[in-house]
Order: sequence, then C-alpha cells, then structure tokens
Amino acid sequence: MNFHLVFNLTGKVLMLESASMLLPALVALLYQESPLPFLYAAAITALVGFLLSRLPYKKHFFAREGFFAVGLIWVLMGLFGALPFYFCGYFSSYVDCAFECFSGFTTTGATILTNIEALPYGILFWRAFTHWLGGMGVLVLTTALLPSMGLRSHFLIQAESPGPVFSKLMPKQSQTSKILYTIYCVMTLSEVLLLKLAGLPLYDSFIHAFSSAGTGGFSNRNLSVGAYGNPVVEMIIAIFVLLFSVNFAMYFLLLCGRAKDVLKSDELRFFFGVVILATGAVTANLSPIYRSVWESFRYAFFQVASIISTTGFATADYMTWPVFSQVIMMLLLLCGACAGSTGGGLKCSRVLLNFRCLFREIRQVIHPKSVSVVKLDGKVVQEYTLNSISIFTCTYFIISLLATLIVSLDGFSFSTSFTAALTCMSNVGPGLDMVGPAGNFSAFSNLSKIVLSACMVIGRLEIFPILVLFSRGAWRRT
Amino acid sequence: MNFHLVFNLTGKVLMLESASMLLPALVALLYQESPLPFLYAAAITALVGFLLSRLPYKKHFFAREGFFAVGLIWVLMGLFGALPFYFCGYFSSYVDCAFECFSGFTTTGATILTNIEALPYGILFWRAFTHWLGGMGVLVLTTALLPSMGLRSHFLIQAESPGPVFSKLMPKQSQTSKILYTIYCVMTLSEVLLLKLAGLPLYDSFIHAFSSAGTGGFSNRNLSVGAYGNPVVEMIIAIFVLLFSVNFAMYFLLLCGRAKDVLKSDELRFFFGVVILATGAVTANLSPIYRSVWESFRYAFFQVASIISTTGFATADYMTWPVFSQVIMMLLLLCGACAGSTGGGLKCSRVLLNFRCLFREIRQVIHPKSVSVVKLDGKVVQEYTLNSISIFTCTYFIISLLATLIVSLDGFSFSTSFTAALTCMSNVGPGLDMVGPAGNFSAFSNLSKIVLSACMVIGRLEIFPILVLFSRGAWRRT
Repeated sequence: MNFHLVFNLTGKVLMLESASMLLPALVALLYQESPLPFLYAAAITALVGFLLSRLPYKKHFFAREGFFAVGLIWVLMGLFGALPFYFCGYFSSYVDCAFECFSGFTTTGATILTNIEALPYGILFWRAFTHWLGGMGVLVLTTALLPSMGLRSHFLIQAESPGPVFSKLMPKQSQTSKILYTIYCVMTLSEVLLLKLAGLPLYDSFIHAFSSAGTGGFSNRNLSVGAYGNPVVEMIIAIFVLLFSVNFAMYFLLLCGRAKDVLKSDELRFFFGVVILATGAVTANLSPIYRSVWESFRYAFFQVASIISTTGFATADYMTWPVFSQVIMMLLLLCGACAGSTGGGLKCSRVLLNFRCLFREIRQVIHPKSVSVVKLDGKVVQEYTLNSISIFTCTYFIISLLATLIVSLDGFSFSTSFTAALTCMSNVGPGLDMVGPAGNFSAFSNLSKIVLSACMVIGRLEIFPILVLFSRGAWRRT
Repeated sequence: MNFHLVFNLTGKVLMLESASMLLPALVALLYQESPLPFLYAAAITALVGFLLSRLPYKKHFFAREGFFAVGLIWVLMGLFGALPFYFCGYFSSYVDCAFECFSGFTTTGATILTNIEALPYGILFWRAFTHWLGGMGVLVLTTALLPSMGLRSHFLIQAESPGPVFSKLMPKQSQTSKILYTIYCVMTLSEVLLLKLAGLPLYDSFIHAFSSAGTGGFSNRNLSVGAYGNPVVEMIIAIFVLLFSVNFAMYFLLLCGRAKDVLKSDELRFFFGVVILATGAVTANLSPIYRSVWESFRYAFFQVASIISTTGFATADYMTWPVFSQVIMMLLLLCGACAGSTGGGLKCSRVLLNFRCLFREIRQVIHPKSVSVVKLDGKVVQEYTLNSISIFTCTYFIISLLATLIVSLDGFSFSTSFTAALTCMSNVGPGLDMVGPAGNFSAFSNLSKIVLSACMVIGRLEIFPILVLFSRGAWRRT
C-alpha cells in the first residue's frame, strides 16, 4: 500500500473541506452569530490537511490505493466536519457531532437532535451543506473517479451495462466532472428559486434544496417539510428528490439530445414503475385516514418520493399509518434510488438484476440445456457482474443484521434496532418505532452511534472501500 | 411437461400418505377416541391417489418434471393431510387445518391452536407424525432423489462440495434411501427411549421424538418442553435436535469409520462454532435475569439449539429476554441447520460460502490481478455454484419481504409480520412479538395463513420447485 500517496490525497481533500467551512461562517456572520466554531474547525482541518499534503510520495496508484483512499477520505471528512458542531456547544458529545456529520456527508439525514430549531443558522446551514457536498462527492466518485481508475464492478454496475459511461462520452475525466458539477448546481439553484417562489424564506429554500440535491433529509424545522403545510412546496421537493435519484447519465444523454435512449433505460422505468405502484398502494391504504383521495395522495406521494430517493423528509409521521404502508416504506428504503445518482439503498438496477437472475434460474430449471443470459437495456450483463451484484446484496443484509445485533444491546425494540441499522445502511434517515419520522437517534448509546455511523459510510461507499480499510491485506507495505 | 407421469407419481405418494393415516387411527383407538376422522381422510386420499396413479404415462422424465412433481406432491400432501384435522371438528376452518398440516410436513411447527391440550391424542399424534414424515421426505429428497436425477446445484450444495454424496458411496439410490431411513429410525427410537427413561410418558416421548427428528417443534403441551420443567429432558431434546441438524452424510461417514473426514467438515465446524458462540452470548446476556449461571446456560443452550436446528421448541419465552438475545435468535433462525439434514433456514454451508465470497471480493479489490478461489473442505467450489448460492440467498430475502408485505395487511406490528414471514420461510415456528414462543398464528387472516403456508413449502423445498410450479414455462405441453 502506497500510504504516502493516500495520505497526500487525503490532505488535499481536507484542505478543500476546510475551505468549504467558510461559507457557513459567512452565513453565521450574516445572522449576527459567532463564526468562531467554523473558523476554529477550518483552521484545525486546514493544518492537518496541509501537513498531510506535504508528504512526499511515489506515483504508483492502483485499485487498492483508490479504495483505501476513498474509505479514509470519507472517514476523516466526517471526523473533521464534526468540529464546527463540537465547537458550537449545542451537542452533548463529540460522538454525537460525528454521528450528525457522517449522517450529513453520507446524505443519510438521521439526527441525534431533539430540538433542531434551537440551533443557530450557521450550524444548520453547515449541517445541510454537508448533504450537498456529500451528494456531489458521491456523484463524482461513482461516475467519474472510480471508473477512470479501472475499478471493478461492485461500484458501478452502470459502468458495465445501462447506457453510457461518462468517461466514454467525454475523453477527459475533468470534463466529465465539470459537466456533473454544472448539472448538479443548476438543478440545486432551480430548486432554491422554485421554493422561494412557492413562499419559503430564502434560507429555508437553500437548506431544503441542499438536502434534496444530496437526497439527505436534514431540515431546519422540527417538523421537517411538514412544518410549512404547503402542498406546492411539498410537490416541488418531491419532484426534485425524484430527479436527483435518477442516474445522472440520463441528464447527460438529454443534453446530447438522446431522449430516446433515456426512455429505454430499464433502471429508469423500474424506478418510476415502483414509485407509481407504491404511491398507488399507499394512497389506497391511507384512504380511511385522510379526508379525501387527494389528501391521501398528497401524503403518500411525498413520503414514497422521500423514502425511495433515500432523502427522508417527512410531511406526516408514517408510524401513525397502517403497518402495510410502513412495510412499503421499508421496502422502498431497501430498494433505494438509481445507480449513479446521489441516492442510496441497494439501487434499482441491482434489485432489477437480482430479479432477472432469479427468473433466469427458474428458466434454467425448466430448460436445463438452454443457454440463458441476463440483459439490461438490451445488452448482455457479464456473469461476474451478476455475481458481484448478488454478493453485494447478501453482504448488505449481513452487515445490516450484524449492526442490528450490536445496536440491540441498547435494549430498544427489534423494529427500532433493525430499521435503525437498515436506514443508516441505505442512507435514508427515518426507520420505524423510535427512529420513525417523528423520532431521532439521541437515545442510542455511543457504541450504537458509532456502529450506525459506520453503517452510513459503508452504505454510502457501497461497502468495499470501508472493508478494505479494515482488512489486513491492505495494511501490508509494498 | 409430462403431466401424466407427474400426476401418476403424485398419486402413488398420496396412497402412501393415506396408509400413514392409519397409525394415528390406531392411536385414537388405543385412547378410546373415534378413528373416523382418520378413516374418512385416508379413504378420500387413497381414492384420489388411486385415480391419479391409473393415468397412463410416457417415460420421459427430466429436471423440470422432477421439480414440478416435487412441488405438486408437497402441496397435495399438505392439502390432503389436513383432512383429519378438518374432520375432527377442533379447527375453525379448512385454511387453519391446511396451515397446521403444512406447518407439520414442512417441519415448521407454527400453530394456529390456542389450547393444544384440548385436542384428542390421535390428532396430536398425527400432528407430530407429519413432522417425522416431512423430515424423512426432505432427507430422501435432498440427499438421494434429486442428485440421482442430475439436478442442478440450488438444491444441494453438498452435492457439489462438502464431503461425499450418497449416490457416490452407494451405487443404487434404493440402497442410499434404505440406509437413510435406518439411521433416521434408529435415532428417533433412541430419543424415544431416552425421553421415557428421563421420566416422560411414552406418548409424550413419541411426540417429542417425532418433532425433534423432523426439527419441527409441535408439542402436545401448551408450554412446549417447558411444561415438564425437567433439565434432563431438555438436555436430551437439545442434543437430539442438534444431531438431527447435522448433514446425514456425516453419519454415513461415521458408519464407514471415516471419523477424520467428519471432523474436517467446514460446515460442521461452522455449525457448532455458531452454537457455542450464541450459547455463550445469550448465557451472558441472561445472567441478570436468572438466579445462576447454570440456569442461564440451561435456558440459553436449549433455546439456541431449538432455534438454529429450526425446531422451535421452547422452555422459556424469549420475548421476556433482552432484545439482544432476541436478535441472536432471529439470526440463528435465518442461518439454520446444515445442508442435508432435516433442519431448515438458509443452511450453514450457504452462510459460510457467502462469507467466503465476501472475503474473496475484498481480496480481489486489494489484489485485482490475483486469481482467487473459494474452497469448502479443501475443495474448490465451482463459480456457478457460488453464484447460485448468492442468488438463492437474495431470493430468500426477497420472498420473505414480499410475504411480510402481504401479511402486514392484517395490521399487526412490523416485528410480528416480518418475523412471521421469516420463521415460516426458515421452517422454525416462533418469531417475535405476537408470534413469539408464547404466541401463535391464530389471529392472522386467511390470506396471511395461505401466504405463510406457501412460505413454509417454499422454504422447505428451497424455493425453486414451488416457483417452477407457478411459472408459465412449466405449464407448456411438450
């Protein structure tokens, strides 16, 4: 392992993170709050980053260095990003700060705060801003950086199958990244504008646009989006979180005038199919609860969009809904958004390919001698990719269950422990019972908070970088 | 599909089932109860079986005929086996009878009865006897019949990997079956004898030995094994359910004097490793609840053995234990017993190979150019076998989650719905909350009971025969 190079890279990212803390410092000044928590944090982060980036290094860089660096960068980003929370004095321990910050960068949106509105504007801005940064980080990571490093398929099944890979459309990675940033920023600003027009204060518009863009879920209101009681705002947010859950390659294609290819995407169809089906089922299930079909639809659609996009905003507490709707939420949470988006979960393409593998198995039982391939977007998917996807899915469940086991030591109910682990792995935010939309993670022990933070990062980075970080083989010197 | 042959085969099995109903009829006579429910049921079953077995057929028989026949036979066995329950008048509907009978044949042990002790001796005998028949059926199915049909690996990873396959040790399938029956009967009778010596009435000894042998879990007492409060009885049963959870190939090897090969079995080591670890963890977790370490160990060991063997007997209600122990129970329930035993669940060898695939993936990230194989018992496991195992595991979760969704329509808690589906898929019996060890399945709707019955059969037959039964391709005429 080329540690020097890895540390050097990490140092540079930390310096960038330090710079990004100046924006919330400005916001704090604007609202006549102290910018000191941000300045202290930025100084420490910059110093460590600077020292690391001074390490001399050799240029050999392979997949394992890549995975290791990605894992390390995300862990350190979270640990240093927690400093402003720590210095502001509103959090009871550093573990709480780190939990909140990991929840931010991984775009999970789970919180340990019980009264969000008591916090200063600057801190809440930083909190939502980490979503936005994290969302962009993942986009660049999964669509530009890793394929260009020639990494294997766990990460990116879209590199194997659905539609184009960015690096193929654009010869240089820097170009790809620029286009990605541009799309991401334009979409975020459009949402800010629309929310402002719909009647939200500018500050709130930014917070919710940042959270939507990263499909995170942090709000500056205790009642989340439900606090506004404004159906137009809800509709704007629901539509935007769905847009941010789409593989960004699709926007690329649209820009190139290839709308037909977009419509043919199996993953996109599956995603919107699930959204429509789930909205219909929940609307029907809620009809005895709300006064009109429209009202049922309003709450159902928002919650379905919020959960499948792995955002986690709430306009209603689904713990008061029938269990059938709750189970649908848990299934959506597990399924998650499209690959190559800012959303989390297993990802629609993996779920779809798992189903297709199952159907193939049945076909092969009936016709054992037939040769049967699995296709996505009309193209044959490689066997080792399919294999990786199945193993990924199994590992996802295994890690969630092991996390459940540790979290259950706190003695909260099985639903609480299990869905807390699941919602953190899927980067959603709310689960069931104590961690439902009206609940929070404050009551968990420090051990559980650390385990759940780890789940968020593991889920966000699609498992392997973090496992590599903790594997013996990676620590051997070369 | 060669329907005539399939129906013919099914008819013959139904005639055997009809004959097996005469034993509980004798028990009924012995206890001065009416044997009529059994005689009516036997007559109907025999008639239908006879008519089916008269169908003329051509001799071509391939894998899909095999899968289809296996699926159909188990479904009909359950439906006809429910007739004695129906005629006895103690059940409120035919769906309840069928649920109880599927639970019996699949060796699940989930019950819709609220007061078991109110039922006649004959009926309770038939109930436990279905466990014994089902356990043997699975043994013969997975270790003798299917490999000899040249079927693919979903079914039998031990055919691919761990140790010997019966058909290789014995040239003829009928010989293999005979040896299997003999081991099974000798072990069952030994347990009957030991339980009698430990102080149980002969009738109770038979009931509990039948349930242990099939790793089912039906008892004739409301409080299950806990009713006796006898630590010797508990220890005998715990050890026997563990013995029945071991791959029966191991006994074969022992008979051949190859004890060394048995000790080298990866699956066996994994299985007992998990038992020891889980017993230790639960014992520690229970120490504040019971008076002594010995008492904690007594309840912990029995419950661990009962759940990992997928039996489901209870000496204590683990819903009164800390959540940590409950989560361990759910993990054991999912893991299940060894392949080639009468136990259910995912099977230890699959869980073990899933873990090994995961470690391989990590190795390959670190050393992308290395060629890495997965081994079991020192032998390389074929890639398509590994692939099948991962897909099997994913499918297991997918089906459990879909079943949870339907069951949740009844409005019981998430834990109840989810663990009900899981425990039925894994053929265990108890789950959490309403379906915990002190609960039962009587409150579910008919739809849920049907879905859960389907889960039991799907889990028992390791998914594919039942899916083949419902796939369009299988119904095409050849």
